[in-house]
Amino acid sequence: MRLLTVGSIAFDTIETPRATRERIIGGSANFASAAAVHFVAPAMVGVVGDDYPEEWLAALRARGVDTSGVRREPGESFFWHARYHDNFADRTTVTTRLGIFERFDPRVPEALRDAELVFLANITPDLQARVLGQLARPAFTAMDTMNLWIRTAREKVLALVPAVDCVLVNDEELAGLTGAASPFEGLRELARMGARVVVVKMGPRGSVLFAGGSFFWAPAFPVADVVDPTGAGDSFAGAFLGCIGAMGGAGPRDLKRALLYASAVASFAVEAFEPRALLGLTRDRIQERYMFLRHLINY
Amino acid sequence: MRLLTVGSIAFDTIETPRATRERIIGGSANFASAAAVHFVAPAMVGVVGDDYPEEWLAALRARGVDTSGVRREPGESFFWHARYHDNFADRTTVTTRLGIFERFDPRVPEALRDAELVFLANITPDLQARVLGQLARPAFTAMDTMNLWIRTAREKVLALVPAVDCVLVNDEELAGLTGAASPFEGLRELARMGARVVVVKMGPRGSVLFAGGSFFWAPAFPVADVVDPTGAGDSFAGAFLGCIGAMGGAGPRDLKRALLYASAVASFAVEAFEPRALLGLTRDRIQERYMFLRHLINY
Repeated sequence: MRLLTVGSIAFDTIETPRATRERIIGGSANFASAAAVHFVAPAMVGVVGDDYPEEWLAALRARGVDTSGVRREPGESFFWHARYHDNFADRTTVTTRLGIFERFDPRVPEALRDAELVFLANITPDLQARVLGQLARPAFTAMDTMNLWIRTAREKVLALVPAVDCVLVNDEELAGLTGAASPFEGLRELARMGARVVVVKMGPRGSVLFAGGSFFWAPAFPVADVVDPTGAGDSFAGAFLGCIGAMGGAGPRDLKRALLYASAVASFAVEAFEPRALLGLTRDRIQERYMFLRHLINY
Repeated sequence: MRLLTVGSIAFDTIETPRATRERIIGGSANFASAAAVHFVAPAMVGVVGDDYPEEWLAALRARGVDTSGVRREPGESFFWHARYHDNFADRTTVTTRLGIFERFDPRVPEALRDAELVFLANITPDLQARVLGQLARPAFTAMDTMNLWIRTAREKVLALVPAVDCVLVNDEELAGLTGAASPFEGLRELARMGARVVVVKMGPRGSVLFAGGSFFWAPAFPVADVVDPTGAGDSFAGAFLGCIGAMGGAGPRDLKRALLYASAVASFAVEAFEPRALLGLTRDRIQERYMFLRHLINY
């Protein structure tokens, strides 16, 4: 089962209350794919500049990620500089330089067009739609978005909602998209707009799924020592979709299970800078956190 | 089944980002008892000044609260003035005037000494211990505390932990008491100190129970419009203990059920100033939110 992710492949400079790391590996496609390797065979579509380390792409390939859809172009890779405040409750974007990402025109390689699972990460809604149009017959498609597109292209984001099976957003994006005061209302509203499955990621508050008229809440795994929350949402999405793929279905029980696994995997993402540790996880460590979360809500 | 609560019976002045209310009904014993009426027969032990409205005590009695343990003394009632910031994420105490509460020496009336359930709310650990000493043979005792006593009388607070069946604190208090980085570690630590049942209340993040070596997490009911979080923790405690009393047991399943009911009841507390709305709740409205929470974690 293949999960195709289209998103950013970036350099991040991250300032946290305790440390700063410059030009490290970042980007939604990297985090989602590093999380998904534990469930399915991921593939990435994206673009990097001539400054991007081949070593990282090789590390992904060594873990089974298909990088044939990653084009290398002359110029600078996407760069994002962020600063976290208030014990990670808030963050500010210091700089965004699109670099070669500005001209990004996603082309899904022939061999990847029959991917069963698709994750349209934080690219523009136009590009998300263009990727969807290149795919043969995906079994399960999901989209994320970001505040920038909600502000500048809200109608286009909303137009895409009924075209995918699942919308995965954070609570701020959900409020921006729907105008709803509570995540629960927001989820209902997105479902009314046509998405079959909707998920809101709320960081340490956990995540909520709305599907088939029912809500399900997965707690966040209690991380004692947050290092860098960057990429947690993309890791969550990668694991969620990967888990659906591994189970071969998206029924109510599958979705709940996938949500708990996603919560488990995302907790590892916040414990380190970069998606490297995520890529190197063992199935046992994921299983241990999944079981903890499973017991936590065992009534 | 009787739940005896010993705590403050106060006037509160509350400033929120949207409204200010002066000298309204507050205090831990009021909130806990108003929540507990829906499960058991509450009784309060406390003290008020000659400025305290008899009308409120009559309202409690009309709903079945035994106020024979509330002494009226010449002088000013306990007064607390608080200001909420940052969309209720933070609060500052502007003023605390103990008034007649400064000389409070809790005496449990003869007729209440055989109460089966006891909640030692936010009074000093010395007074909490003195109350425990006056009781015949309570079936289930719980204590709360507050940051002031953790700072000024931490050893006394900790000495009381093994003397009660249950410790109910918020996450900040838990961190202060145990020094643990995560609520889960803090709960384990408190259990090691001798409490059989420990609960941490984390506001919108829900609550976690640790008992018999297992954790259980109850989500918070998603309140769309928070009016005033004051008293939510005491309402939670009153409903938790009341529910244990109503079920007549404190086995694993009873405790989990009580946690979900407590979460449901506390959600009503934050939707209004004062404990009046809580007192007037119907069983149906509580049941509806309990069922919502129950389904929310139904795996």
